[in-house]
Amino acid sequence: MSEESSLLKESISMNDTMVEEVEERDPESNPLNEPLLKRNRTLSSNPLALVGAKVSYIESLDYEINENDLFKQDWRSRSRAQVLQYIFCKWSLAFLVGLLTGIIATLINLSVENIAGYKLLAVVNFIQNERYLTGFLYFTGANFILTFVASILCVCFAPTAAGPGIPEIKAYLNGVDTPNMYGATTLFVKIIGSIGAVSAGLDLGKEGPLVHIGSCIASLLGQGGPDNYRIKWRWLRYFNNDRDRRDLITCGASSGVCAAFRAPVGGVLFALEEVATWWRSALLWRTFFSTAVVVVVLRATIELCHKGKCGLFGEGGLIMFDVSDVTVTYNVMDVIPVVIIGVLGGVLGSLYNYLLHKVLRLYNLINQKGKIYKLLLSLSVALVTSICQYCLPFLAKCTPCDSSLSEVCPTNGRSGNFKQFNCPNGYYNDLATLLLTTNDDAVRNIFSTNTPLEYQPSSILIFFALYCILGLITFGISVPSGLFLPIILMGSGYGRLLGILMRPYTNIDQGLFAVLGAASLMAGSMRMTVSLCVIFLELTNNLLLLPITMIVLLIAKTVGDSFNPSIYEIILHLKGLPFMDANPEPWMRNLTVGELVDVKPAVISFRGVEKVANIVNALKNTTHNGFPVMDGGVVPTTGVASEATELHGIILRAHLIQVLKKKWFLKEKRRTEDWEVREKFTWVELAEREGNIEDVAVTKEEMEMFVDLHPLTNTTPFTVLESMSVAKALVLFRQVGLRHMLVVPKYQASGVSPVIGILTRQDLLAYNILTVFPHLTKSKRK
Amino acid sequence: MSEESSLLKESISMNDTMVEEVEERDPESNPLNEPLLKRNRTLSSNPLALVGAKVSYIESLDYEINENDLFKQDWRSRSRAQVLQYIFCKWSLAFLVGLLTGIIATLINLSVENIAGYKLLAVVNFIQNERYLTGFLYFTGANFILTFVASILCVCFAPTAAGPGIPEIKAYLNGVDTPNMYGATTLFVKIIGSIGAVSAGLDLGKEGPLVHIGSCIASLLGQGGPDNYRIKWRWLRYFNNDRDRRDLITCGASSGVCAAFRAPVGGVLFALEEVATWWRSALLWRTFFSTAVVVVVLRATIELCHKGKCGLFGEGGLIMFDVSDVTVTYNVMDVIPVVIIGVLGGVLGSLYNYLLHKVLRLYNLINQKGKIYKLLLSLSVALVTSICQYCLPFLAKCTPCDSSLSEVCPTNGRSGNFKQFNCPNGYYNDLATLLLTTNDDAVRNIFSTNTPLEYQPSSILIFFALYCILGLITFGISVPSGLFLPIILMGSGYGRLLGILMRPYTNIDQGLFAVLGAASLMAGSMRMTVSLCVIFLELTNNLLLLPITMIVLLIAKTVGDSFNPSIYEIILHLKGLPFMDANPEPWMRNLTVGELVDVKPAVISFRGVEKVANIVNALKNTTHNGFPVMDGGVVPTTGVASEATELHGIILRAHLIQVLKKKWFLKEKRRTEDWEVREKFTWVELAEREGNIEDVAVTKEEMEMFVDLHPLTNTTPFTVLESMSVAKALVLFRQVGLRHMLVVPKYQASGVSPVIGILTRQDLLAYNILTVFPHLTKSKRK
Repeated sequence: MSEESSLLKESISMNDTMVEEVEERDPESNPLNEPLLKRNRTLSSNPLALVGAKVSYIESLDYEINENDLFKQDWRSRSRAQVLQYIFCKWSLAFLVGLLTGIIATLINLSVENIAGYKLLAVVNFIQNERYLTGFLYFTGANFILTFVASILCVCFAPTAAGPGIPEIKAYLNGVDTPNMYGATTLFVKIIGSIGAVSAGLDLGKEGPLVHIGSCIASLLGQGGPDNYRIKWRWLRYFNNDRDRRDLITCGASSGVCAAFRAPVGGVLFALEEVATWWRSALLWRTFFSTAVVVVVLRATIELCHKGKCGLFGEGGLIMFDVSDVTVTYNVMDVIPVVIIGVLGGVLGSLYNYLLHKVLRLYNLINQKGKIYKLLLSLSVALVTSICQYCLPFLAKCTPCDSSLSEVCPTNGRSGNFKQFNCPNGYYNDLATLLLTTNDDAVRNIFSTNTPLEYQPSSILIFFALYCILGLITFGISVPSGLFLPIILMGSGYGRLLGILMRPYTNIDQGLFAVLGAASLMAGSMRMTVSLCVIFLELTNNLLLLPITMIVLLIAKTVGDSFNPSIYEIILHLKGLPFMDANPEPWMRNLTVGELVDVKPAVISFRGVEKVANIVNALKNTTHNGFPVMDGGVVPTTGVASEATELHGIILRAHLIQVLKKKWFLKEKRRTEDWEVREKFTWVELAEREGNIEDVAVTKEEMEMFVDLHPLTNTTPFTVLESMSVAKALVLFRQVGLRHMLVVPKYQASGVSPVIGILTRQDLLAYNILTVFPHLTKSKRK
Repeated sequence: MSEESSLLKESISMNDTMVEEVEERDPESNPLNEPLLKRNRTLSSNPLALVGAKVSYIESLDYEINENDLFKQDWRSRSRAQVLQYIFCKWSLAFLVGLLTGIIATLINLSVENIAGYKLLAVVNFIQNERYLTGFLYFTGANFILTFVASILCVCFAPTAAGPGIPEIKAYLNGVDTPNMYGATTLFVKIIGSIGAVSAGLDLGKEGPLVHIGSCIASLLGQGGPDNYRIKWRWLRYFNNDRDRRDLITCGASSGVCAAFRAPVGGVLFALEEVATWWRSALLWRTFFSTAVVVVVLRATIELCHKGKCGLFGEGGLIMFDVSDVTVTYNVMDVIPVVIIGVLGGVLGSLYNYLLHKVLRLYNLINQKGKIYKLLLSLSVALVTSICQYCLPFLAKCTPCDSSLSEVCPTNGRSGNFKQFNCPNGYYNDLATLLLTTNDDAVRNIFSTNTPLEYQPSSILIFFALYCILGLITFGISVPSGLFLPIILMGSGYGRLLGILMRPYTNIDQGLFAVLGAASLMAGSMRMTVSLCVIFLELTNNLLLLPITMIVLLIAKTVGDSFNPSIYEIILHLKGLPFMDANPEPWMRNLTVGELVDVKPAVISFRGVEKVANIVNALKNTTHNGFPVMDGGVVPTTGVASEATELHGIILRAHLIQVLKKKWFLKEKRRTEDWEVREKFTWVELAEREGNIEDVAVTKEEMEMFVDLHPLTNTTPFTVLESMSVAKALVLFRQVGLRHMLVVPKYQASGVSPVIGILTRQDLLAYNILTVFPHLTKSKRK
């Protein structure tokens, strides 16, 4: 950031004189008589971003309906049967998304519980026989191999599968297309990688990956299979557009959260609050259907597994902290600890965001060096994690079992709240209970209620410190990793610690303290409120907790917000994804889109019937994805037979390439009939985005021919007047989901182009604008 | 509806030849050379609607930011302290809304429980002494008086307080201003009326009224008190605009639902899914805060009342059906009854919507006849209700008490599941349990679990039939009435009946059947999903019910949607409120805004510096609320010194009236300086909407003077090209929350006005468009 700010300062001093000029000029006074001020810097757009762990070329999505002649034709001719087909498909896909996400989530849980379970059982066996070194080697070796598998897959086959994937999904739903994000390879690597990484006991969760998996399933279903083996089923053609794919991916993301926490309403709300940019009631209703299916699948498999058919997979596998049997009593005085938890959660959460940002910047430098470095980084983190998990419990003192509790003590099995580890019979090692187990079980153990004396403060402190470090160093490595679980682990540790400290002053159970700690840290880091609240409600299954959970979340979020943005926003920024915020910056009201257009290269437009050579040149020499189409004519209303220029609409690069590829050229300069274009193109073909201008070969003769662009032009583009403020233009851009926004002049006169510029997502990003108009930061600072 | 369709047919035949013309003309072919087709009918706008129970003149709200010079000035000069003041106020108001809504909800509950409680105790006393007639007279008389109080208040003082108020709130948040809806009188009448009507045992709930009460509180707080006694606190000036008031009212509506059901998350989701049109993450977070406050208030008062300080107000007063202690077991086969409940709920719900629509139309005719008719209608419904509630239990046979149950039987107290009524000791009257009690207790009683033999099928059948009839005839009377409770009562009756019928085939508890029945009928009638699901989750406090509740809701909504729209949409339509739907009609893609503008009267615009006479004339002769402001000039870029016309922006009627009132006139035709306007106007004054052109006196001399409109003009109006399809224009209009949308020509030529028309909310309503373009219904029918 420091380089950037120095750069900014430099340009401010450079432009100081210019700034004076700009400020003197009142944009409303008499713009028609003034020459347009040209600046020496142009608005740059950087179409590169870090997708997964790889720098890729990103594009905007077309969420706007392209109302050209072909679309209207296709749309008018759609019969009632086709509309019903579409509706049927829409709901079937939502069902399938839920079903498959549910099944894959079960599969992951089953594999993790069995792999990690048998691993831990073997380790416990070694320890019981006092073969500590063998146990250590076995434990570390197994974790090393599991991490290796997860990491090598991510590094070699699908770099986009690393990390949680939630920031990229958030960007996708905001209108940023990230390549290779939703492919079959990514899905496969994400599933296997997630199983490997979680079984290896790394400090990461399967929640984020499940969200990504849900989205991948949704995307693959919508396009009819993997990229190269797509089923060209006629019914699926309706989904070959960005709008319907967006809806499907929203369903997938909600299903993923639902599968991770068994929280159907929480899943829907998570998608609504955190992931989605646009939202409609109809979508609420469809995502809800998907999550309902997920819940039914999960319930069915859990019922099956209760009968013992799933190996070591029992009740667990999905964090469930059922406190409905505990009578929660709290009175007015308990507000004080609750407030303390909230405030501390907010502070710690924002501190975590800050530190994680630093670590991720460092990791990016390491990861850029090559595949082998990525792999080494993952493996060293795995080693550190294993060593700590195995060795630290030896530091803890053995605690005698409390015979008044009904639970088995000590336990040697896979799960259980009182691990014997290295202790004599009748004693348990409280730190082993927390460390030498799966992450889900660790959460369950630290959440355990009515066991106020189970953990020694020192053990909880070690646990908390360890997971703070692991939480920071694990997230950025090249394996599928979720953020939820590390934060829950950290938060529950800090909550329980606080509970122990506050025991003399309050009646709140310590397990509850752990839950509230986890909630506060999540709110402090992720800054969600309603969805977190519902997820915790569905996790704890106790409504009486709701009011205090709400207060904790609200306080933690408020405190966190005063320090830095949410962790997802930080990651989005770090990756360079052009995410459009909901609220325009205040200084955007002082800038008009006309001023923005002035600092962009002149717009390149086509005539309604255009020469092939011009099209080829324009496509080769620019990277624009949309071109205005204009016609000449005479205005009838005024009677004056002056020359008029008419804006016909905007045409997309992809459609122009289709025209060139299919060689739909005319010998003479004339307009075509409807049937001519329908003979050559179908709406389905136009939906394809593939094709590159370099692959198109046009002969010299063809270069002199013409193309009638009218039928392929979107005749209803969204436009703004040049006097529109950037703040309002941004609201329009985001609310309607645009890719190109045409800027039209505010005055009427002959010989003036009806379009003076095109604005895209990149042009409206605050950061890009400020590089050209640095003086605006002054008002920003005010 | 039949008249309308015949009218439509007529106009279709009338316009048949015209339709041919229209269809021949290809709007894209060569519009510049064609004369604009003028139709003989013009797009009419009807600014009247039924608000509450009274026909009123309605206006649109300004949700768009009016970026004129004064606003920009005020906004630029806002210091950091003022921004903090604004934020502080925003949150304080959200807090106060929650606090006051919680307190008033408690007050209403307390009053209802005590009034109805003592009334019922007296009646029970009479019956125990076998003084049946006295009991009847006492019961009927008390109910009559209570209804009279509620009704006379509504009829004479605040007609807007009748009904639930939810449709009007929904319309407000969509951008329709309904007068007298949020005043102090309305609030007062709503509170007293609701207490009266609910205590009178009428078949209506306090849920809808509580939503309205929450909104009233929010609106009153935002404007600093009742209309005539407003506190002119400086800090409150930031809230004197439609945008901030909209946010406050959303908070109020959520708080109301939360207070009604003690469902904080449900309240937020209800506002999100059903009431609000625009939604932002920041608002989610603020409404959530309000509902959290409500819950804390309710919890505190309930704790107080547990100590017996609230008269007869105990646990009850808020429907709470706690089934967390019941182990809900269901297996795959139980899906069948669940599906049956869902399907029947959908059918019954849409049937209810259909019938209620008919009844409301009939009631509208009666209510139009005068105040005395309104009053008589309410009182007769009260009489019928009382007679049925008192007399029908005599039809039921006495049932012997089941000694295996731990509950007291029979009971004579106010609440209790086994009412003795006219039965001998050791016996109870099951119908009296359901009818001779408050509505909340009736719901609790019919929801009771583990009591499969408590009710005879005949009693439940009578209960269901009675509440079907009462539910239809009660809603439209002139008292504050909610729709939730009647539907819950009906639905629980039908659910329990189904439970009795299905007992041999399923293990699902009958109380659960009642809950599911209520849920299904609500989904079938109101068509909500996620919010209902969460409300039921929070009511029943049992997460295991979630999957089956979800399935029931989804099925019921789907079935219902295939018959008719939701009850709120039906009421909105019946009241004539111009509500903008989220989705444009399919045929709107075939129509351009240019065609719409053609059938509107020509737009009236002003010059930047305009003669006073012109302004006065325009204001007197039209009802337009916005006028484009245009300037002349010369285009610099082309070098050609042709005459150009520049669109400066749009000015509001309210601001013009302010100018005339303050007599801000210029002797000569010149532009003013910034300080001149700032001397005369403040941004706060411009926010006022009051003032009528009739009240403005302008002398003959002044008529010849000039006004500089530039500083008061909103320079950044949203515009669309004339070639824009109505479908997309509607999306823009709704998404951005516009009041006026300017239509600009798609061609550039001298001597052409830069604005060819203005579209408002009324112009974009499907119904209004179809009266002018009836041929579009053809494609609609396809």
